[in-house]
Amino acid sequence: MTKIGIVGLGIMGGPMASNLLDAGFEVIGFDLVTSSLERLSAAGGNVASSAGQAAAESDVVITMLPNHPQVEAVALGEGGILDSAKPGTLYIDMSTIRPETARRLAQVGGDRGLRVLDAPVSGGERGAIDGVLSIMVGGSEEDFASAQPIFAPLGKTIVHVGPAGAGQTVKAANQLVVGGTYALVAEAIVLLEASGLDASVGLDVLAGGLAGSRILELKRKSMVAREFRPGFRIDLHHKDMGIILDAARDAGVALPVGNLVAALIASARAQGYGQLDHSALLKVAENLSGKGDAA
Amino acid sequence: MTKIGIVGLGIMGGPMASNLLDAGFEVIGFDLVTSSLERLSAAGGNVASSAGQAAAESDVVITMLPNHPQVEAVALGEGGILDSAKPGTLYIDMSTIRPETARRLAQVGGDRGLRVLDAPVSGGERGAIDGVLSIMVGGSEEDFASAQPIFAPLGKTIVHVGPAGAGQTVKAANQLVVGGTYALVAEAIVLLEASGLDASVGLDVLAGGLAGSRILELKRKSMVAREFRPGFRIDLHHKDMGIILDAARDAGVALPVGNLVAALIASARAQGYGQLDHSALLKVAENLSGKGDAA
Amino acid sequence: MTKIGIVGLGIMGGPMASNLLDAGFEVIGFDLVTSSLERLSAAGGNVASSAGQAAAESDVVITMLPNHPQVEAVALGEGGILDSAKPGTLYIDMSTIRPETARRLAQVGGDRGLRVLDAPVSGGERGAIDGVLSIMVGGSEEDFASAQPIFAPLGKTIVHVGPAGAGQTVKAANQLVVGGTYALVAEAIVLLEASGLDASVGLDVLAGGLAGSRILELKRKSMVAREFRPGFRIDLHHKDMGIILDAARDAGVALPVGNLVAALIASARAQGYGQLDHSALLKVAENLSGKGDAA
Amino acid sequence: MTKIGIVGLGIMGGPMASNLLDAGFEVIGFDLVTSSLERLSAAGGNVASSAGQAAAESDVVITMLPNHPQVEAVALGEGGILDSAKPGTLYIDMSTIRPETARRLAQVGGDRGLRVLDAPVSGGERGAIDGVLSIMVGGSEEDFASAQPIFAPLGKTIVHVGPAGAGQTVKAANQLVVGGTYALVAEAIVLLEASGLDASVGLDVLAGGLAGSRILELKRKSMVAREFRPGFRIDLHHKDMGIILDAARDAGVALPVGNLVAALIASARAQGYGQLDHSALLKVAENLSGKGDAA
Repeated sequence: MTKIGIVGLGIMGGPMASNLLDAGFEVIGFDLVTSSLERLSAAGGNVASSAGQAAAESDVVITMLPNHPQVEAVALGEGGILDSAKPGTLYIDMSTIRPETARRLAQVGGDRGLRVLDAPVSGGERGAIDGVLSIMVGGSEEDFASAQPIFAPLGKTIVHVGPAGAGQTVKAANQLVVGGTYALVAEAIVLLEASGLDASVGLDVLAGGLAGSRILELKRKSMVAREFRPGFRIDLHHKDMGIILDAARDAGVALPVGNLVAALIASARAQGYGQLDHSALLKVAENLSGKGDAA
Repeated sequence: MTKIGIVGLGIMGGPMASNLLDAGFEVIGFDLVTSSLERLSAAGGNVASSAGQAAAESDVVITMLPNHPQVEAVALGEGGILDSAKPGTLYIDMSTIRPETARRLAQVGGDRGLRVLDAPVSGGERGAIDGVLSIMVGGSEEDFASAQPIFAPLGKTIVHVGPAGAGQTVKAANQLVVGGTYALVAEAIVLLEASGLDASVGLDVLAGGLAGSRILELKRKSMVAREFRPGFRIDLHHKDMGIILDAARDAGVALPVGNLVAALIASARAQGYGQLDHSALLKVAENLSGKGDAA
Repeated sequence: MTKIGIVGLGIMGGPMASNLLDAGFEVIGFDLVTSSLERLSAAGGNVASSAGQAAAESDVVITMLPNHPQVEAVALGEGGILDSAKPGTLYIDMSTIRPETARRLAQVGGDRGLRVLDAPVSGGERGAIDGVLSIMVGGSEEDFASAQPIFAPLGKTIVHVGPAGAGQTVKAANQLVVGGTYALVAEAIVLLEASGLDASVGLDVLAGGLAGSRILELKRKSMVAREFRPGFRIDLHHKDMGIILDAARDAGVALPVGNLVAALIASARAQGYGQLDHSALLKVAENLSGKGDAA
Repeated sequence: MTKIGIVGLGIMGGPMASNLLDAGFEVIGFDLVTSSLERLSAAGGNVASSAGQAAAESDVVITMLPNHPQVEAVALGEGGILDSAKPGTLYIDMSTIRPETARRLAQVGGDRGLRVLDAPVSGGERGAIDGVLSIMVGGSEEDFASAQPIFAPLGKTIVHVGPAGAGQTVKAANQLVVGGTYALVAEAIVLLEASGLDASVGLDVLAGGLAGSRILELKRKSMVAREFRPGFRIDLHHKDMGIILDAARDAGVALPVGNLVAALIASARAQGYGQLDHSALLKVAENLSGKGDAA
């Protein structure tokens, strides 16, 4: 039976481990938070004493961590995953990090005889619990194929999008469009309301035409009602905008709209909205126009 | 039988007149272009010698003109529509113009005993020909109700969005979101391709998730293939961005993303892409990153 | 003796009229505000009953009005300046308006045998009182030369910058750079302070090097102290940004930074800072970073 | 006699070493480029076999390196400067890097009994050769005082701007304002020229008023003439914009104008202008408006 090591058992990694256990895999996990380890144990998993141990004892290792410094520490650090895993081990980083680090993991891992995939996800905590994440995978065709049984209990849409790093690049592009669409819808609401209109009526029209989007479909009611329960937090989208800026710099491209949206999301965080849903970009747009709480 | 005057028989107004004739209305039209008048005549319509005459002899007058200066000249000018129409006439401006002018038409028209609606459309030439336009209507409930038989042969989605000017404001908000979404998708494509990925695969993933939009659904293939046949021309979207900036100024709001997108669409036009589809914002994004024709 | 008509006797036009009287010119003025007329009278000027009359009785007519709609009404309206002035009259519009209107005045005026200059100023109320304005003049060399005796008591730096409209274009370019520089200095202050530094010390260094500017020289102390007494009001700079956007649209150029700065100045106004000095752009930058009053 | 180690003997570090030798200091240097070491030797300096050795044998160590990864490798790496320097050594990093790394150097160095300053410079190769750099220094008052004899032969304006990292933050703020001012002047030139004016005349007026700046003073002639010999290269300013974005993220602030300017400088680089002077932002502005080479 395939043995899977998981490093990072938080909001996303925890339910993913449960789903892998439910699918019949043997799981050995590591996290710095004791309660996460206890939860894994209660669900039938084994607890490792370090990331390196989790890697050493597994056929497949998964990391699900906040950002690239954590991944670098755990994977590239002394006694870490790449040091400890057996040759032939499949290492899948499912964190959302910058493409550059993903490519570096693939190169260093490859040099040591490992097979490496980057496989960031979207769909949030709900998707992790329900096992219906979207998974964007970068790496070789062959490694992607061999990872299918592991991805199956975790996600619904599982797409191989290109070579090492490609998963992270597609995730970055996704967050760019998502963040920007929120900013646009926010400006549309501000314009409609400041003009004396009922924004709901106006957005209904927009949602039905060429301006239509999944965000308008899912979020226009809650935005107009100023309900910003996450969902996906501004703090996380702020992190993701940093990844986009890094990816753009690395790829040698200029993203003026992306850069401006990054500033607006940074503003949301600076104004104290970091724990709200990313649709709270509306509050930034409102404050800019003197219409919000802050006014 | 209701007699309808139409001023402006171009790409949009011409087929609208035909659809009204087909629906059994008597139509009297005016345009500065002789061939447009001949087409109307051939379709069974009557030709007026001026906008004023078209108004004087009708129960309902429609204008479908390029922008606010033309509407102001024809409606507010001496001997124009508001001077010539009989009290009680319903005047519907279906041009896309700034909300401020729409409100002024409603006020001046109201003062003279006319009933005035602003009713800009989306759906383009194809929608005009097929009678399936989306129509966003500003004005009183009562006037909106009385205009339903006129709108019926022209559009499919016909929504009363608020008082005088509201139709134009919603249209402006729509074009803001549409223009901005093109800019975001363009930046996503540039980022994906410059990172060595097949943008089609990446955009397929985006289209299926929270980044999804009608634009990704309809235009991602043509954008990746660099096919920019209009559709809706950059030149027209540039005009519409001017309306958005005016509407924002008038409403006293700040739209940083909208303003930046306006600059990018102005750039598209300045670089000679005015006759291409608005999805050609991709060319601006490419050139900024040294990847396009201009590189 | 040359007789000068002045239309618009407000904060700027009032002291200009006084300076022309002091220089020995005969002055006939018009304004809608009675107290302005009384002040002119007390200073030794004559009062006209309309702009047209002021023009009809003068050799030189000056307008100093808030924006293009006022200038258009007074100059192009029926019975207005261009209707009433004698052939050969020199008409100088010293308002800050869009270049397009300036060119139209020159054309219509020229058709009627008038000589027309656009001559917007900088230097504010203080400069108007002290007669030390900077005057940027568009029009023919010949007309510029003939206007020198009129400009002499009003300004210190008097430059012929090109043909009709050029004065307004240079003024627009000036306001673009001024507004943008305030926005940049504001962001620098926010960055320095949020990093725990004394912004005064940092700005002293900037002021002495390649980042140095007249704005840093004159305003860095008051900005760090949050003193925003005008000076030049946000409301007026907001008006000027509208002129810049119009001028850019007219010239067929894209100004991404200018457009963004326009949004920030619109935000300053929307947040209620319209009556403060334009250096109050700092408050917008602070609020965006959660550091200001509004936080 | 004080013995100074210098790591990094390139365009800036090379002449700085010469000036320190001329001032009577004993100098031991290290660089990866052999020719740089030969030049040092010819000038009377000693050559170290590693950064660590240069540090071990000196009372004061200076680093002058391209960016933070190089500084981190040389200072924080095993056997590097912080490992090798004797307690009490003064370590001055004169590279331009992100403030976060400067603070980390100060902390780690302090833990090991070293005294650490961050002291980035402006003034370029010319300033380094002539010993007239501006030096912005972060660290303790005491260490700043003790470094004065070392700074004296290198710079003219030497300012203590705050605690550890403050030198880098001020440098970042400086580059933000410099980059943004170039972008604004570029847009002003594009607007003036596209309006049919002689930009030189217009910029002369701007330079004399509130829009005036050191950049307008020094560069307006070369910009209008399209002479972009460096000076300070776009590639380096692009690096510096990365530092600014990092510093802003670290300080929790939002810099919308800074972010947009970063995109424009990234565009300059992506379009192949990386080796030109930073005033070549004009080419980006021109291309956006369809006026440049690329048009």
